[in-house]
Amino acid sequence: MTLKRSPHVRVVLVGTTHPGNIGSAARAMKTMGVTELVLVAPEFFPHSRATALATTAADVLERARVVPTLREAISDCHIVIGTSAKSRSLPWPQLTAREVGTTAAAKSDQHIALVFGRERDGLSNDELQQCHYHVHIPTDDECRCLNLAQAVQVLCYEVMMGRNTTPAETSEELAPHADVQCFYERLFETLATLQFFDPKQPKRLRERLMRLFNKAQLETNEVNILQGILTAVRRKVSP
Amino acid sequence: MTLKRSPHVRVVLVGTTHPGNIGSAARAMKTMGVTELVLVAPEFFPHSRATALATTAADVLERARVVPTLREAISDCHIVIGTSAKSRSLPWPQLTAREVGTTAAAKSDQHIALVFGRERDGLSNDELQQCHYHVHIPTDDECRCLNLAQAVQVLCYEVMMGRNTTPAETSEELAPHADVQCFYERLFETLATLQFFDPKQPKRLRERLMRLFNKAQLETNEVNILQGILTAVRRKVSP
Repeated sequence: MTLKRSPHVRVVLVGTTHPGNIGSAARAMKTMGVTELVLVAPEFFPHSRATALATTAADVLERARVVPTLREAISDCHIVIGTSAKSRSLPWPQLTAREVGTTAAAKSDQHIALVFGRERDGLSNDELQQCHYHVHIPTDDECRCLNLAQAVQVLCYEVMMGRNTTPAETSEELAPHADVQCFYERLFETLATLQFFDPKQPKRLRERLMRLFNKAQLETNEVNILQGILTAVRRKVSP
Repeated sequence: MTLKRSPHVRVVLVGTTHPGNIGSAARAMKTMGVTELVLVAPEFFPHSRATALATTAADVLERARVVPTLREAISDCHIVIGTSAKSRSLPWPQLTAREVGTTAAAKSDQHIALVFGRERDGLSNDELQQCHYHVHIPTDDECRCLNLAQAVQVLCYEVMMGRNTTPAETSEELAPHADVQCFYERLFETLATLQFFDPKQPKRLRERLMRLFNKAQLETNEVNILQGILTAVRRKVSP
C-alpha cells in the first residue's frame, strides 16, 4: 500500500541547539510522509551531524528554510499547533496528539504548522500565544524526557495515521496567520485609544483576547468583518 | 495527570548491533510507561553508549535481562507481537500499531511481548513464526528508514494511548446561553450606532458574527471582557 503524504503539513523547529536533532527529526518526518521543514534560528545549520542522522531524508534538510523568527515561519499558515511540555496557567485550546492527526487530515486544504521548541526549555510564552492550539504528548511522571526527534516522530505518525484513515472534509477558507496578527494589532491599538486596557495587566488581556479569537479559527471573511468594525469604531472615536 | 503504566508489556530487542539504539529504545519505552526490557544476544551490552542515550531511563537498562534466544525471552508471555518491515509470503495474523495499543490495554492481565528485530534485517522467519501477531508500522515509499528506537517509540506510544483513555479536559466555565445572547444584542445595537450594518443585508452580518463567536465557545470571563469593550466603545461614541 502506498501511503498518502501530507504536503500541507510543515514542521517548524524553533531554536534547535543540537544539529543531530534536526537530522533525526527530518528522518522521523520523512518516514511518515511529511517533508516541509522550517528552522527558526537554529544554533548550527547546515551541519555534518544533521546530514549524517537524516540518512535518506537528506533532501528534507536540503529544502529546509531557515528564518529568524517564528512569525516568519508561520505567516502563511492557517492552523498553528505548538507543542508544550508544561500545563500553563492560562488554558489554551488543546489537542491530543491523535486529534492533531485527525485535524490535519480533515483540513488537507489548509497549511498546518507543527511547532516544536528548544530542547531545553521549549517554546516561550510569546511563541505559544501565536498558536491556535497546544498539544502535549503525555509521558510518564518519572521520565518526561521525550526528546525532540521522538516528539516529531509521534506527531508525524499521528498525521500519517489521520491522513491514511480519515476522509477529507472541505472547509471555509481560514485566514492566513499574518492577517490574523494584523487584526490583533489593530484591535489592541483601538482598545488603547478607547482606554480599555487594564493598565496593571495589559498583557493578560491581550492574551485572553487572542485566545478567544484563536478558538474561533477565524476565516478570511470573518477577519474582514472584524477589521471593518474596528474601522467604524476608529472613524467615530478619533478626533 | 499521572499516566497509567503498562507493567505487563515487555520490549524484546533481538540481535541489536548498535548499543546506542538500546539506550534510545529504553528512553522511548520509559517515557511511555513501559519498563521491562529483554535483550536477545545483543552485540554489545552493557555499553557506555547505551547508558548515555538512555539518559533518565538508565534504570530500565540496569534491570534489563540478557538471554541467548528469542524463545527464552518470551517463554512466559501470553501474547507475542513481532515487528515486520516487509510483507511476508506466509500470511500471518496482523495487527496495526493502533491495535497493538488496544490489545495491550484489553489484555492487561496477560504478559505481552513486543519483539523488534536486527537493525539491518529484522526478525528471521523462524523468529516471526514464534509470534502470535505481526505488526507493520506503515512508512513512506521513499523512506522506509524508521529506525529501531523510532519503531519502539511508536508502538510504546500506542500502548500508552491504549492504556490511558483520552484524559478528561478541564475547561473554563462556559458562559450561559442567556449571557451570550445578551452580548449579541448589545453588539448589534453598538454596530447600529456605528452605522456599520450593511442596510441591505443586516441579517447576514448578524448571522456571521454569531457564528464566529459561537465557534469560540465563549466563557463567562470572555463575555465579560467583550461586554467591557462594548461599554468602552459606547462611552466614546454616544453623544
